Amino acid sequence: MQPISVDAAPLVRLRARLARLGAPLCLGIDPHPRALPEGLPTNVEGIERFARGIVEAASEHAAAVKINVAFFEAFGSSGVAALERLRADLPADLFVILDAKRGDIGPTAERYAAALFGHLAADAVTLSPYLGEDAIEPFLEHEDRVVYVLARTSNASAGTIQDLPVDGAMLHERVARWVAERWRGGRVGLVVGATRPDDLRRLRELVPGPGFLVPGVGAQGGELEAAVACCHGTDAPGLVNVSRAISKASSRDDWQEAAGAAAAALQARMKELGATLGR
Amino acid sequence: MQPISVDAAPLVRLRARLARLGAPLCLGIDPHPRALPEGLPTNVEGIERFARGIVEAASEHAAAVKINVAFFEAFGSSGVAALERLRADLPADLFVILDAKRGDIGPTAERYAAALFGHLAADAVTLSPYLGEDAIEPFLEHEDRVVYVLARTSNASAGTIQDLPVDGAMLHERVARWVAERWRGGRVGLVVGATRPDDLRRLRELVPGPGFLVPGVGAQGGELEAAVACCHGTDAPGLVNVSRAISKASSRDDWQEAAGAAAAALQARMKELGATLGR
Repeated sequence: MQPISVDAAPLVRLRARLARLGAPLCLGIDPHPRALPEGLPTNVEGIERFARGIVEAASEHAAAVKINVAFFEAFGSSGVAALERLRADLPADLFVILDAKRGDIGPTAERYAAALFGHLAADAVTLSPYLGEDAIEPFLEHEDRVVYVLARTSNASAGTIQDLPVDGAMLHERVARWVAERWRGGRVGLVVGATRPDDLRRLRELVPGPGFLVPGVGAQGGELEAAVACCHGTDAPGLVNVSRAISKASSRDDWQEAAGAAAAALQARMKELGATLGR
Repeated sequence: MQPISVDAAPLVRLRARLARLGAPLCLGIDPHPRALPEGLPTNVEGIERFARGIVEAASEHAAAVKINVAFFEAFGSSGVAALERLRADLPADLFVILDAKRGDIGPTAERYAAALFGHLAADAVTLSPYLGEDAIEPFLEHEDRVVYVLARTSNASAGTIQDLPVDGAMLHERVARWVAERWRGGRVGLVVGATRPDDLRRLRELVPGPGFLVPGVGAQGGELEAAVACCHGTDAPGLVNVSRAISKASSRDDWQEAAGAAAAALQARMKELGATLGR
């Protein structure tokens, strides 16, 4: 693929865009072939057209975009080629997160970083903490890029491992503290699901530094307020990811208009919440 | 890519091949562009030629092959295309593990399974436990395929998270017990590094069921005996992965002969150890 040109260092770009939009909206792109709008083919072409259509319609309201690489990898090399084209055509001032949740030993982590930060020119990636710092630090060798380490995810079985008791706390709290203490300055954030607002607030108090990437927010859910409220990491800004509430706002042939309208409404609501919260 | 034909259900094939070879050797393929033999280009072509050359020279001595996908993904769609070609040409009676260490929420896990079990027709994959059962079970929807869940890895910082104390045990022991209790029958094994033989033995006693996939074994390391000794899961056979001691037996133009000789020696040594251990 062609070299990708960007405006400025990722966090500089993100801060500028957040200031302009007034809302920490991250646009989630997770195109499942079974959940495409009517009229799109359920193959790699459909996935690419859908992802491009959502970006075109909704990204002006979002500070960042989070693309889950699994939905492209499912189609092998032709899916990865589609991801390369999609990425190359993203607006240059958008903060681009590749949601890959990788976690491997040092030399392998270096190659995943070459794939995601080098080849695909992501601004940020998501990583698993399970292998410790060896799995994180090779990514930080890529100047100015950002990583989000999984702390508490938003899926039903997240608690099986992440809530295990470690020295009087839960494992995900221990992971959050480890990240906050080991890497300061904003380049290592945390993934914290929005499904339990109380947990989100508690974790924000426990680790004031790292920026949070908050998935699991629905269109109207009361969790939106808690998610926006925790986007004030002292080291780096946070982001609230919304996927289906935008990309599946309609499954008919008005899906692009509906996605644009849903994103605009979310931007406005987040801006309002941010003002109420005094920021 | 073309449909891939295989002989029989993965564990049936693995057991047949183990019985024939008498050694649980798994051939690790982790081609780093900086560590290719002299004369190979440090690009995707070099990676593919190296991987193919190692398989050609050494796989007859191995029950399984473990390919780390990161080294192909680093080259984007052209790297994944090389992996597709490599996979399609593997011997049909070899047990093929794709080392991907994925771990994501249900619908995403389903797409990773489509990539690795569907598109690339792996017999087995490695997975992270951090997201709980949601990240594992979509893979088990693929009939007869095998997954290895990370318990204790072999890297320097493995202990940071994996050795945290949980209810009087270490996190990786808790993960191993969770896997052993939740999924019986041999389709869910564990990744347990060989770097600390005592831990390996202790874990084998703690969870007698799951097959172990044991990375981190060097050419002559004393850990080989402990690794072979733990390859007797009561539910499924185990495998000892060797990468560099075979693939980097020589970095000159005799690299293929050297890899073949190293694999033959390892097969013989493992067979001998297995006999000593009374199996």
